[in-house]
Amino acid sequence: MTTRGTRPVDVVRLAAGSPAATAREDEVAVEEPLEIRISGETLAVTMRTPGSDRELVLGFLLAEGVITGAGDVSSVVHCGRATDEGRENTIDVTLAPGVRPPIDDETGMLARRGTLVTSACGVCGRRSIDDLLARVAPLPSGGRVARAVIAGAIEGLRERQPVFARTGGCHAASLVGFDGRHVATFEDVGRHNAVDKVIGSRVLAGAAPLAGHLLVVSGRSSFEIVQKALAAGIPLVASVSAPSSLAVDLARRANVTLAGFVREGSMTIYAGAERVLP
Amino acid sequence: MTTRGTRPVDVVRLAAGSPAATAREDEVAVEEPLEIRISGETLAVTMRTPGSDRELVLGFLLAEGVITGAGDVSSVVHCGRATDEGRENTIDVTLAPGVRPPIDDETGMLARRGTLVTSACGVCGRRSIDDLLARVAPLPSGGRVARAVIAGAIEGLRERQPVFARTGGCHAASLVGFDGRHVATFEDVGRHNAVDKVIGSRVLAGAAPLAGHLLVVSGRSSFEIVQKALAAGIPLVASVSAPSSLAVDLARRANVTLAGFVREGSMTIYAGAERVLP
Repeated sequence: MTTRGTRPVDVVRLAAGSPAATAREDEVAVEEPLEIRISGETLAVTMRTPGSDRELVLGFLLAEGVITGAGDVSSVVHCGRATDEGRENTIDVTLAPGVRPPIDDETGMLARRGTLVTSACGVCGRRSIDDLLARVAPLPSGGRVARAVIAGAIEGLRERQPVFARTGGCHAASLVGFDGRHVATFEDVGRHNAVDKVIGSRVLAGAAPLAGHLLVVSGRSSFEIVQKALAAGIPLVASVSAPSSLAVDLARRANVTLAGFVREGSMTIYAGAERVLP
Repeated sequence: MTTRGTRPVDVVRLAAGSPAATAREDEVAVEEPLEIRISGETLAVTMRTPGSDRELVLGFLLAEGVITGAGDVSSVVHCGRATDEGRENTIDVTLAPGVRPPIDDETGMLARRGTLVTSACGVCGRRSIDDLLARVAPLPSGGRVARAVIAGAIEGLRERQPVFARTGGCHAASLVGFDGRHVATFEDVGRHNAVDKVIGSRVLAGAAPLAGHLLVVSGRSSFEIVQKALAAGIPLVASVSAPSSLAVDLARRANVTLAGFVREGSMTIYAGAERVLP
């Protein structure tokens, strides 16, 4: 049985103090894109957990200053044919007469939000991955890393967070070699920014792509984090907490090893377990 | 002494089991906008912790597929005059000859990312707040809430997270009346989406704006979370973890009460402490 908003995934669990790898089923939170349209034109794409999409859209439009209440909206409906893949991930808003959509002064079109824009009605996670893999090839197989190196990289991350130590509220990311050598750590209020800084520091050094390295992040792993690792050629992503469903799907398709819940010697591997020496 | 990336703030601390409110100085992680330009045209604005901006930009451009390495970039420099406010928050990239910038097929302009776009060289946190307050008025003073209601709202949030309980990786937000009545809770992989769903559910019900309510969120409070509360007229935001510097600044200017580290009866109040009955 699954709760709405979760999805079962097959994982490999490495328990603390045991070299045995146990296959089991876990659940991950569902992450899927939602494309928000106004009268058929794309306003924004957000990665969200499906469900309560009309609520999400009205809250988003209120925060963006597009509407001031329900009276400013004539309809909010999922679009596309019932058979379209991803139909449930596209939602179209018709504003009430007289309510002005947010137009970009320069382009005369809707002022778009978000990074991912599609042209067909029916965006979905699989398509987001297809689009990405059309421009970035999956990583080559090969490379092995000792489980102790992954655990050590997470420990090292904790020790290199002076901003977190003083504030209790800051993300961080580290790059570590498969041999355990620490390469770089950056902190940022945004986890994605911390990852960009880590990877950008290696681009600046002329050292990318980054085969033979692992990326560790505080908190969770989303689609975006795995995407950044893939673009940089990093074959392994590990985090202290859980990945999303789309992070797992992308990692599997792109041949990126994905480990989560790396805590006190144990970890859960969601993709590419063959790279981890237990 | 402050660590780079942190800023001191005056707070009010309510310790567990004591009605006394203690004024003290804490530190928060710095959050400021960074506008990324290509040859003077805005590509993206991201909320980040200042420092290592060139690394951030190169990592971002690599992830977005704009560059494949340092050789694709001629220069990355902060722009504007040295005296401009926010100069350090605008960075301009000149791509190497032959490297194609990411052009939107429909508009013929740069395909923009992010939600916040400015026109002058020199974006800064104060200006982000000014822009927001130009369209959304600060909240009226008044309204009191018992400290126990805030603590109870955080406890209630934990009890209403079935996705988190099964996955260990999902955010949540709740809306609670100042009288302690639970109104709505939603979970989502994105904290901002969970907040949009909570607020949108009240918009749908025709019940917004939301004076006399508090918003509680899992994790941290960023500028974006306080912005969403303000737009919905919610006078108090509380979270389990820390706020960012810009969340504190916005809460103070917009007359929103901001509480953090709400744990086991204690909490830290960063703005609007007069609304909290200790």
